[in-house]
Amino acid sequence: MFFHEPELQYEVTVEDPDPHFAKLLQQAIGGQEGEMRVAMQYMFQAWALPEEYEAYRNLLMETAVEELGHIELLATAVTKNLRGSPKEMREETDETAAAAAAMTGQNPRQFLSSGLSAMPVDSNGVPFDGSYVAASGNLAGDLYANVMAEAIGRTLATRLWEYTSDPGMEDLLSYLIARDTMHQNQWLEALESLEDPVPVPASFSQEEENQAVNYAFMSTRRDAQPDPGQPWTQGATPDGNGEFSYLAEQPGDGDGVPSEPDPSTYNDPQPDDQQR
Amino acid sequence: MFFHEPELQYEVTVEDPDPHFAKLLQQAIGGQEGEMRVAMQYMFQAWALPEEYEAYRNLLMETAVEELGHIELLATAVTKNLRGSPKEMREETDETAAAAAAMTGQNPRQFLSSGLSAMPVDSNGVPFDGSYVAASGNLAGDLYANVMAEAIGRTLATRLWEYTSDPGMEDLLSYLIARDTMHQNQWLEALESLEDPVPVPASFSQEEENQAVNYAFMSTRRDAQPDPGQPWTQGATPDGNGEFSYLAEQPGDGDGVPSEPDPSTYNDPQPDDQQR
Amino acid sequence: MFFHEPELQYEVTVEDPDPHFAKLLQQAIGGQEGEMRVAMQYMFQAWALPEEYEAYRNLLMETAVEELGHIELLATAVTKNLRGSPKEMREETDETAAAAAAMTGQNPRQFLSSGLSAMPVDSNGVPFDGSYVAASGNLAGDLYANVMAEAIGRTLATRLWEYTSDPGMEDLLSYLIARDTMHQNQWLEALESLEDPVPVPASFSQEEENQAVNYAFMSTRRDAQPDPGQPWTQGATPDGNGEFSYLAEQPGDGDGVPSEPDPSTYNDPQPDDQQR
Amino acid sequence: MFFHEPELQYEVTVEDPDPHFAKLLQQAIGGQEGEMRVAMQYMFQAWALPEEYEAYRNLLMETAVEELGHIELLATAVTKNLRGSPKEMREETDETAAAAAAMTGQNPRQFLSSGLSAMPVDSNGVPFDGSYVAASGNLAGDLYANVMAEAIGRTLATRLWEYTSDPGMEDLLSYLIARDTMHQNQWLEALESLEDPVPVPASFSQEEENQAVNYAFMSTRRDAQPDPGQPWTQGATPDGNGEFSYLAEQPGDGDGVPSEPDPSTYNDPQPDDQQR
Amino acid sequence: MFFHEPELQYEVTVEDPDPHFAKLLQQAIGGQEGEMRVAMQYMFQAWALPEEYEAYRNLLMETAVEELGHIELLATAVTKNLRGSPKEMREETDETAAAAAAMTGQNPRQFLSSGLSAMPVDSNGVPFDGSYVAASGNLAGDLYANVMAEAIGRTLATRLWEYTSDPGMEDLLSYLIARDTMHQNQWLEALESLEDPVPVPASFSQEEENQAVNYAFMSTRRDAQPDPGQPWTQGATPDGNGEFSYLAEQPGDGDGVPSEPDPSTYNDPQPDDQQR
Amino acid sequence: MFFHEPELQYEVTVEDPDPHFAKLLQQAIGGQEGEMRVAMQYMFQAWALPEEYEAYRNLLMETAVEELGHIELLATAVTKNLRGSPKEMREETDETAAAAAAMTGQNPRQFLSSGLSAMPVDSNGVPFDGSYVAASGNLAGDLYANVMAEAIGRTLATRLWEYTSDPGMEDLLSYLIARDTMHQNQWLEALESLEDPVPVPASFSQEEENQAVNYAFMSTRRDAQPDPGQPWTQGATPDGNGEFSYLAEQPGDGDGVPSEPDPSTYNDPQPDDQQR
Repeated sequence: MFFHEPELQYEVTVEDPDPHFAKLLQQAIGGQEGEMRVAMQYMFQAWALPEEYEAYRNLLMETAVEELGHIELLATAVTKNLRGSPKEMREETDETAAAAAAMTGQNPRQFLSSGLSAMPVDSNGVPFDGSYVAASGNLAGDLYANVMAEAIGRTLATRLWEYTSDPGMEDLLSYLIARDTMHQNQWLEALESLEDPVPVPASFSQEEENQAVNYAFMSTRRDAQPDPGQPWTQGATPDGNGEFSYLAEQPGDGDGVPSEPDPSTYNDPQPDDQQR
Repeated sequence: MFFHEPELQYEVTVEDPDPHFAKLLQQAIGGQEGEMRVAMQYMFQAWALPEEYEAYRNLLMETAVEELGHIELLATAVTKNLRGSPKEMREETDETAAAAAAMTGQNPRQFLSSGLSAMPVDSNGVPFDGSYVAASGNLAGDLYANVMAEAIGRTLATRLWEYTSDPGMEDLLSYLIARDTMHQNQWLEALESLEDPVPVPASFSQEEENQAVNYAFMSTRRDAQPDPGQPWTQGATPDGNGEFSYLAEQPGDGDGVPSEPDPSTYNDPQPDDQQR
Repeated sequence: MFFHEPELQYEVTVEDPDPHFAKLLQQAIGGQEGEMRVAMQYMFQAWALPEEYEAYRNLLMETAVEELGHIELLATAVTKNLRGSPKEMREETDETAAAAAAMTGQNPRQFLSSGLSAMPVDSNGVPFDGSYVAASGNLAGDLYANVMAEAIGRTLATRLWEYTSDPGMEDLLSYLIARDTMHQNQWLEALESLEDPVPVPASFSQEEENQAVNYAFMSTRRDAQPDPGQPWTQGATPDGNGEFSYLAEQPGDGDGVPSEPDPSTYNDPQPDDQQR
Repeated sequence: MFFHEPELQYEVTVEDPDPHFAKLLQQAIGGQEGEMRVAMQYMFQAWALPEEYEAYRNLLMETAVEELGHIELLATAVTKNLRGSPKEMREETDETAAAAAAMTGQNPRQFLSSGLSAMPVDSNGVPFDGSYVAASGNLAGDLYANVMAEAIGRTLATRLWEYTSDPGMEDLLSYLIARDTMHQNQWLEALESLEDPVPVPASFSQEEENQAVNYAFMSTRRDAQPDPGQPWTQGATPDGNGEFSYLAEQPGDGDGVPSEPDPSTYNDPQPDDQQR
Repeated sequence: MFFHEPELQYEVTVEDPDPHFAKLLQQAIGGQEGEMRVAMQYMFQAWALPEEYEAYRNLLMETAVEELGHIELLATAVTKNLRGSPKEMREETDETAAAAAAMTGQNPRQFLSSGLSAMPVDSNGVPFDGSYVAASGNLAGDLYANVMAEAIGRTLATRLWEYTSDPGMEDLLSYLIARDTMHQNQWLEALESLEDPVPVPASFSQEEENQAVNYAFMSTRRDAQPDPGQPWTQGATPDGNGEFSYLAEQPGDGDGVPSEPDPSTYNDPQPDDQQR
Repeated sequence: MFFHEPELQYEVTVEDPDPHFAKLLQQAIGGQEGEMRVAMQYMFQAWALPEEYEAYRNLLMETAVEELGHIELLATAVTKNLRGSPKEMREETDETAAAAAAMTGQNPRQFLSSGLSAMPVDSNGVPFDGSYVAASGNLAGDLYANVMAEAIGRTLATRLWEYTSDPGMEDLLSYLIARDTMHQNQWLEALESLEDPVPVPASFSQEEENQAVNYAFMSTRRDAQPDPGQPWTQGATPDGNGEFSYLAEQPGDGDGVPSEPDPSTYNDPQPDDQQR
């Protein structure tokens, strides 16, 4: 059950509204690396967990709810960057060409479709997609998905920080980057709290795996190469269950040619005799 | 530069063709967890890396090319499960209703659109989408994305293994599951070979982060709760740079209300006096 | 700023788990008519409103937060319908064919991708899409979008109610249908509280409209038909600004042929003389 | 059965071709608020209606066909804005940088993919999507969807009108805005001609609704608030079937924790004892 | 400018309504090979053609309008297959399991979302997508796209014909297949009426092409193979401008390693010395 | 089974990095006309072909693998155009406005999401979509799809060639355009090697077609027009099986009105008596 207060989780101020930055910020709302993705991801992961995972269920849901607040922060930042600015833009741009560039250099839908406010889309205007969400039902797999989401999300936030020089926006990003630091650490810590999670899923019996290739680096070079002696071709494996080895060739020898389908598929025509 | 030989990377045999399994196998081809995703992901990651990352560039590209071969294995498996079967289906199903169920219980496009062969779609027929690919330019973020992809991909493969009892399909899955084990291990090993990758991106100065919240678990419960004493609320953090702490409340106090947009947006109408 | 408590907004019980119903329920989570859509829609609408719209801002946000709770209710319902059931399914289905039908008649991704839990997709497995969200910045337009969303959403809920006979599911749907009744009414009431909202947007000067066609029903029949005497071809218009009239013909006479593009487009080839 | 004449429904002239405006106009063709959406929406709604709805069936189909003509008008407008212009652009832009900005500030696909002509995409180049279409089979729900579509569509058209100062484009938009005025009015009038359409669907027995919450505004504030005394918390409801009331709290008390899934899902690993 | 008459272009009768076939028919409406695609494709192609292409413009637009009528035929066929049937389904299926299979074996959205009528989606419920439309501005390229669309579209129609045994549906498909025959022929004939259309685009000077590889078959086999003596490795080329030859190796020798990006991208971390 | 060598298939040099061109090049990677599409298309087509089609299977797969190498060439070209450039951009743009325009005129995700490298998206940032791939199982239909893909792909490449004046990029495009010339020719030659492929699918008995309309051009003009005497209204048809004729009218006379659906759909409300 959810609740809400009108105050924001953190202050959002914009000194010099910048509609171009409003376009870039959309990536952090509705993009592949954005807050809509993590909010939904952590929720769906939490809802799948049964009783004995209560601590993880709480961890996931409390963080999901924090991320909902981040969507709100960023939506506010977008709108504050869009409003106030268009008038000046229009004034300073006497010729049509310049005005045109100004409006289309932005995301035109932030004017045309939303009346100068935030949208559930990315920085190119591509709508948020439910397939950004990773929630497999396997906690270890999901926690790696979360580390990855926060790693790539923090990378996005630092690139946005690099772009802006507005003190209010820098302060907001400094807050969001800090939260991404914490979230990376908490998901890594949660992974460490699990018993032998790797290889995911851990409950599948490794005896059923093909034993010839489950710890071998398989080269796909055209000409067989000697073992490069990398950490991933020799030595103990991180899961503690094997030793890396090196295969200079793929197994090969499989036959890929399917039989003919039933005539009801109308997969014709027959080749001329010469081509058979 | 790529090359190809007609033989398959591994043998693909099907004793009892099962069109329903052909539908499920599509998830491993064109799904969010599938082989098209990892093949593309590792390639785009490799292409972004400059010279001093040569060992990683090779690691990524050689694995990408192996995954191309997995798409081929699975496409062959799909087609072999689809062909041969429809005739018997038709014979055993005299009444329309049963035939209908047989054909629509499958993915109907495997008959209608591809003439009983594999497609670049998932098990529900949703087309592969480029946004499944994660390639951020940041190697550590990308490697976490790869661990996650192989973790969730192996989970998918074990669920497919659980479904089938065909010896040929079990053997193929035993091979693919083994490769996922190796790939999880190699990406984890590659992460270990990097200097202090966490928090990703590591080159952003942590001094710029908001210091009050970068290692604090932030509760979003309605009523303030005591510190639950979990590994993610106390103790050293995995990145080695901080100590977990616990905040029972979000910072709050931000003002979210935007100013009015320019009249050119036609964001009307005004509320009645009573509602203002 | 958002908060959450682990208890659900309403009780969710399932007496006879039904994985097929779990598939159908997905439409109410991630579908075009689902709860993810309205939760996001009301939030983005609220975030766009400036200060003098405070009552509407609160109305929208409080309802958005209630809808977040509905996603949670439905995700729980999906998971409870999926779990417990597969074992019996397997037991009762000795032959491969029947087992296959059982698993593929469902959404296979609820097993393959999420380990028997809910997903951000619709009943065909198509991922939620940000373009389901309507938030134009114009309050009247947005409120009509909300009436529509709750009208079509309630229609979906009644069709789900028609399908199930599980007492727990009937009770949950009876609750959700009631809330849709309230929401339809509150959005209609909010529309009535606005001053002259129609035609939306009301602040555009109607003098700028083409006066010949702004209240005329325009027939597109092949042969001109007499005025059918319908309420939309005669009488006063609902916006109070005009009188309906009837045009048996479209204006016509426009010239649609574009000039040739620049040769840099390579829009060739020239037709033979005969075809020019 | 459809027919077509080469003349356009209305005149389309462009005095000063503006490729930036050609980009913005795409929103009105292939966007969420565009003409492809309404043309398809009204058709699919019409095709679902049985015999006793003949007057509505005609109303919907005649308007759908008018909208097909609007796609044609706008496609012509796009092409006329794109052609003639690139040459001058190239001449006036001696340096690469300026030319680059000119071509990428536009939708690059209008040059690269369509040779300076219109496309079935929105102003950001996102393809038209069938999910923009709302057609529920319930006439009242569909008519609300139509009011909404014309309300948001007219808002888009007024924003485009605000952008351009080309007399030909202003005249075209003046025509399209007028038609949106008419269409809003005709859908509202059609709603009024239905018997008691609200709450949609009207044929569902309201006795089956949860009577405790079907006319109550439910607050989701963190701390219980007094009744704000808004029109949607007290007084008669628009559907004429109830009285608004105010609930300061959500019902709550539901148990969200699912049982464990079957081991065949490989939803592991178990948490350490401490975290259970 | 478009027109419409309520009668259908061809008769649509269904003797035995079959909801499963209603699901399959959706592929021919909103699928990649469907009628929405060709209707839109031919329109957008027509709208791009300038005056001297008038005969082609008419050819394209008249066929587009015929295809609009095919959408109408198929939508009617879907609805007639869906209605009448559900009652019997319910009666004959006493147990929940069978009823569930019956409803989920279909496209559940044809019940849940559209009230037993047609939708702008494919046979898996994936929405129509504007990117199915090919309209490049180059007439020869577009005509090849049209041959392809009608070839794959007719293949789909024959597979649907193979599925059904309903006399009404067979008659409708016999009509649609015949039209696809005509359309394939008319597009091929239109191609023949163009002067030297191949290679498309013909107006690009072939002197600018790399002369070493513009008529050579390039083998990508791992080990160099002898010329297989196929029609595409020797003899005159169909465009009449060259002679096929055979290259046993790709040119190779390109350097793919990019330079380091600016530090503002935060593309870290550095590898350990050993891995450089 | 696939292999790879680190050298590129062809040299890729960039003299003057141009981030705007990097945006345009994305169309040739992940766009509807791009290399990801053809690589996947030729693979899936090849994998569907049984033994007697071995020559075609090889033809398709060898070309698919060449196209993989083209993705690599273009990804390298994108990255080389993006890197080196941003620093100067920043230096030369002192004021925020100019910097903003520079960064948003590009694809912002090439900075924000990929750290200045290539992505699996098109020139507007829309992700690659599996539905771009055409692979029907019918070889003739597939070969027409391939001619079309190379025709439109070569058109794209010539437009890119027109845009750039960088010698390295011109050389790369000269190579890619030459390959598109070859590929168009090889697919046309392969079509010629098939026995009577048209109308596709050739194995469907034309006796089952509606004989009244299978070679008739059907006019859809509002008023019946005389036979225009075009090559597609008279004379022998390209498939050699018929004679073109001309129908001034569509057949018509079909009844489109469906029966009422079951009440369980809640398709209400009833119209007032007047509107029935």
